[in-house]
Amino acid sequence: MPRSPDSTVASIGEFGLIDRLRRLVPTGGPGVVLGVGDDAAVLRFTGPVVATCDAQIEGVHFTWDLCGPDDVGWRAIAVNLSDIAAVGGTPRFVLISLALPPDIPVATVEGIYAGVAQASSAHSVVVAGGNLSRTPGPLAVDVTALGDAGRVVARAGARPGDGVWITGTVGKAAAGRYLAQHPGVRVPGGAALVAAFRRPTPRVQAGGLLGQNPAVSAMIDTSDGTASDLLHLVTASGVGVRVDEARLPVPEGLPETAGEAGNDPAEWMLGGGEDYELLFTAAGAFDPQAPGLAGTLGTPLTRIGEILPASDGRWLMGRGGRRRPLAAPGWDHFRGEG
Amino acid sequence: MPRSPDSTVASIGEFGLIDRLRRLVPTGGPGVVLGVGDDAAVLRFTGPVVATCDAQIEGVHFTWDLCGPDDVGWRAIAVNLSDIAAVGGTPRFVLISLALPPDIPVATVEGIYAGVAQASSAHSVVVAGGNLSRTPGPLAVDVTALGDAGRVVARAGARPGDGVWITGTVGKAAAGRYLAQHPGVRVPGGAALVAAFRRPTPRVQAGGLLGQNPAVSAMIDTSDGTASDLLHLVTASGVGVRVDEARLPVPEGLPETAGEAGNDPAEWMLGGGEDYELLFTAAGAFDPQAPGLAGTLGTPLTRIGEILPASDGRWLMGRGGRRRPLAAPGWDHFRGEG
Repeated sequence: MPRSPDSTVASIGEFGLIDRLRRLVPTGGPGVVLGVGDDAAVLRFTGPVVATCDAQIEGVHFTWDLCGPDDVGWRAIAVNLSDIAAVGGTPRFVLISLALPPDIPVATVEGIYAGVAQASSAHSVVVAGGNLSRTPGPLAVDVTALGDAGRVVARAGARPGDGVWITGTVGKAAAGRYLAQHPGVRVPGGAALVAAFRRPTPRVQAGGLLGQNPAVSAMIDTSDGTASDLLHLVTASGVGVRVDEARLPVPEGLPETAGEAGNDPAEWMLGGGEDYELLFTAAGAFDPQAPGLAGTLGTPLTRIGEILPASDGRWLMGRGGRRRPLAAPGWDHFRGEG
Repeated sequence: MPRSPDSTVASIGEFGLIDRLRRLVPTGGPGVVLGVGDDAAVLRFTGPVVATCDAQIEGVHFTWDLCGPDDVGWRAIAVNLSDIAAVGGTPRFVLISLALPPDIPVATVEGIYAGVAQASSAHSVVVAGGNLSRTPGPLAVDVTALGDAGRVVARAGARPGDGVWITGTVGKAAAGRYLAQHPGVRVPGGAALVAAFRRPTPRVQAGGLLGQNPAVSAMIDTSDGTASDLLHLVTASGVGVRVDEARLPVPEGLPETAGEAGNDPAEWMLGGGEDYELLFTAAGAFDPQAPGLAGTLGTPLTRIGEILPASDGRWLMGRGGRRRPLAAPGWDHFRGEG
């Protein structure tokens, strides 16, 4: 198929591509002293700065058969906003570092930026800077997010007696990935599961509100899997934990999808990863129905367990009342799923 | 050759590697409210925040035959600190996103972090966060640097009559690369040229001091090449420029190296790139010998030309008095050297 002269990034060049991309995303607004186009951005914050970075790499974090370019752009932003929310911050700016094979179509990069623009607009975030590099390897979108910090919630604050809470539902990205891979399988709520996999919703509003709540003692987002991330949290806090499997919030269609896949639903719910929900602990005084919390978080909250003294261990109370050690079937980037 | 059980990043895993790496670099200190180990860092700044990101990709920005792992780590930090300096900022924190092939030796990653530690310590910068990803492709080190902003100097401030100045010397990275590729060639000052290529010195002190100087009107760093970066600056400022080739500050050994290579020295000096000097414009009142400037910048300054009205064009006055258009033989990531 003949290609038009401007069809690949190699043909329009670095500066031609920058000119096109900067028009696609929000790059200015309050707080931007110096934006895209200089060696560095200069940004105003109202207090301390929350900062995080996370990459989406072709063939590792996504594949083109399951995600469109706009899904990749959305996800690259969303996973970073989730990290900001996970310490109670409010995201404001992103920097985007793209590593592109020269033969990639310009339309693909513009598609990625369409998804970046959608996620950025949805959460009032500005693209303040970035970088373009050539790569002989897979396409990579590496994003740094910067946000405002009010009260900061670390992983290490959980205390025995605290409840263990989670936003939204668990296992939906794993179920959605299965459905994306098996388009012939139809289950109720299937489209929402696929959307949760392709375009995870960062709990930006919930993170900011929970961060301000003095009863909230520790927080993390569920990128690696519910069990794995909970173990990160209790390890950092030096405490034990009990999770009640029967309380895990089940997304519509997950049991049916697991049935089609011949899988144990609990495996996806505890180990699936990529849900980007907020997993947090809160003292007994925490009331999810309190004014200023219920209805404004943008997601329901579910109490799934309790923090225990370290000596009580870390375990899961199964549906049949069977108690077993809480294992981490979550994701390790270099070992694969374990 | 048999490998020990912990010899690759795949064998020690993501979290084992994180534990090792965080011990190698400065991760705490003033301004770090929440550091490495949570979903996001929380950092204190004294005012607006300068932010930039830049990647070093194996086979694109470096090759293992010419650079050691510690050189790669140094360079990944240095090029970002240079961008902070280029707008008059002072770097304080970096976030490091590593994309690693699973079979890479742990020793290589630790070597990269040794270079990160050296560059960070040399410029009082703290590693505040990061991310590890697996990649099937080449190794990549993507760094975001954050710094304090005093007076901000953009590219767009140059006015006719301003002098064009540069720190240090030009073309040394290009000459150093040639010498690294041809270890049999010996020239006076050759070791310094190779060092300038492998471990560029970001002009951190100069950037902060020049940024505070009210006569300095526009600034950029020479990552793409003297001519190319000067053209970026004058384009952003909407002005013309004259560069006097005879005034370009020549590093020791460059003419001899160019002679050995059968190259025109001016080609390296104007188009070589990767020197990471600061190229800036300053009003007539600017005095490089003023107290608080001379001796404290850490580098000599040279006036290499003059900003002209846009209608006078952009040109180079050659050594023989021959006037020619200032061309941009600098680096375009997707087109290669043009």
